[in-house]
Amino acid sequence: MLKKEKYNVAVVGATGAVGRRMLAILEERNFPVARVLPLASARSAGQTLPFKGEELLVKELNRDSFRGIDIALFSAGATISREYAPIAVSAGAVVIDNSSAFRMDKDVPLVVPEVNPNAIGPRPGIIANPNCSTIQMVMVLKPIHDRFRIKRVVVSTYQSVSGSGQKAVNELTRQAEEVLHDRPVQKQIYPHPIAFNCLPHIDVFLDNGYTKEEMKMVNETRKILEDETIRVSPTTVRVPVFYCHSESLNVETEKPISAGEVRDLCARFPGIVVVDDPANNRYPLALDATGRDEVFVGRIREDISVENGIHLWVVSDNLRKGAALNAVQIAECLHNR
Amino acid sequence: MLKKEKYNVAVVGATGAVGRRMLAILEERNFPVARVLPLASARSAGQTLPFKGEELLVKELNRDSFRGIDIALFSAGATISREYAPIAVSAGAVVIDNSSAFRMDKDVPLVVPEVNPNAIGPRPGIIANPNCSTIQMVMVLKPIHDRFRIKRVVVSTYQSVSGSGQKAVNELTRQAEEVLHDRPVQKQIYPHPIAFNCLPHIDVFLDNGYTKEEMKMVNETRKILEDETIRVSPTTVRVPVFYCHSESLNVETEKPISAGEVRDLCARFPGIVVVDDPANNRYPLALDATGRDEVFVGRIREDISVENGIHLWVVSDNLRKGAALNAVQIAECLHNR
Repeated sequence: MLKKEKYNVAVVGATGAVGRRMLAILEERNFPVARVLPLASARSAGQTLPFKGEELLVKELNRDSFRGIDIALFSAGATISREYAPIAVSAGAVVIDNSSAFRMDKDVPLVVPEVNPNAIGPRPGIIANPNCSTIQMVMVLKPIHDRFRIKRVVVSTYQSVSGSGQKAVNELTRQAEEVLHDRPVQKQIYPHPIAFNCLPHIDVFLDNGYTKEEMKMVNETRKILEDETIRVSPTTVRVPVFYCHSESLNVETEKPISAGEVRDLCARFPGIVVVDDPANNRYPLALDATGRDEVFVGRIREDISVENGIHLWVVSDNLRKGAALNAVQIAECLHNR
Repeated sequence: MLKKEKYNVAVVGATGAVGRRMLAILEERNFPVARVLPLASARSAGQTLPFKGEELLVKELNRDSFRGIDIALFSAGATISREYAPIAVSAGAVVIDNSSAFRMDKDVPLVVPEVNPNAIGPRPGIIANPNCSTIQMVMVLKPIHDRFRIKRVVVSTYQSVSGSGQKAVNELTRQAEEVLHDRPVQKQIYPHPIAFNCLPHIDVFLDNGYTKEEMKMVNETRKILEDETIRVSPTTVRVPVFYCHSESLNVETEKPISAGEVRDLCARFPGIVVVDDPANNRYPLALDATGRDEVFVGRIREDISVENGIHLWVVSDNLRKGAALNAVQIAECLHNR
């Protein structure tokens, strides 16, 4: 991609929860766009989406959609990405893909701009956006790893339903009403009721007993931090929260680590906000992080059960830093280099 | 306490969420009672509570309440226990105390009947009921420790609001309605909204950065398993669930451990039910465990990040096995020995 003053940007999956936020964030951050082209399935084509005071017409995605496009932001699932991302690249676009389709391809950089911007080579084709639960975790692991060298991470997540899309947000809303008014609970998205319940199940189960979501956190973390020796063991859990994922991290390091140093390192790291004043009931919360760009970290404390260990509580808006914002930040990397 | 055919049983805090379940469980399990005396504060005295088809009159707790009482089940908070438990013992009763007041006293046994019934000495005065989050955890740790010797446990909890009492159940109900109907959210019990949110804060914060709830899990586990070398590091989190606590456990053992062996050991342990068939979406869930007596365990899998490690997902009804049922089971121990 040649550096330009302004870019033609396509958003694939523009009517979805992440796609809508991609448009909003392109506008908020005043990304230099010449033209924005929202693309979606035939079902959603013909809708309009707001952008800079205008209404953009959503077009149906097809093989000719990418003529003249410089940057294509994909957020329409792995199947669409596998089919159309190569077409977009052939048409001359750089693809920033929010799906899992290419993340572990050795030729595809997997990028969190604050963490590994240099993974983007001189002539990028597809650049992958990591999984939401990985992004907010590696943001915090990066400064810790650089200073103390991480050996092992045990993480349990508290993930919001918006990670499963707008229909899951609607399902939680509807089920909560059903429970509160003693009506039978209807299920569509999840195999069990999510309202007033916790489901230790995100994505499909694999042979080793972990879910695909859990193994994404294992493998993507190693790739982003460029260190195959880091061991990660996650348990991913869906909770009845609309927006933002919370994560309980236990990190073991090679070098002696202290809560004070971790607090300082995090506070200095771009994109992280330390909220860690428990005496005044201040710690990161999903409700507070909703609609915010930063990764919030608190409950930072030395682990009493192991020599060099630290606990952290990490919260971020899974649709923003976990998806749409990170993708737009990658586009900014391309523009700014 | 002399063994009798039937006992006079007092329930202190009878009108609370746990107290009501104590009465229900005494009835369900047909505990041999001669007389049941529900006691509460002046505010609640005069109410009636159902027991075996009758309505029992709630009396005001005072220094004379325990005349003729054989067993006093306390669940009215640590302050009441500290004042009245010694009075009850002086009057000749055995106290089974659900508060934290005496749990760590070296002369007070801390008992989970399936785990350490022999901690009850020949002439018990006060017997302490452990904290709810500890009880369901040690139920699962016990067979693992006996066979593989536990070195370290990292646990993150997903705790229901009923652990904070009926008012917190009402608060979650009311706040959920407020959110769903776009009304301002009112707070009384928790410092932040609990509806559609996760609060990494249960009980008060201590100097080491852990909460009192977290340190209960550390210290009570060692006392119950009678092994001061077991290291436990918890993060306790309140989630918008009405009943049942869920726990994500990561356990490191001295001896090599396998998921299959842990599944077998748990399945054979009294009071545990293994629900572990992820291929068919079967794992323990708070909604399924509500009103049940057992501790449910699933997502049992070998940890890929450490040599001898195992993950488990443990769910139990915090008001039953976590409180009222465990107390009644202790009374049964007294009767059956």
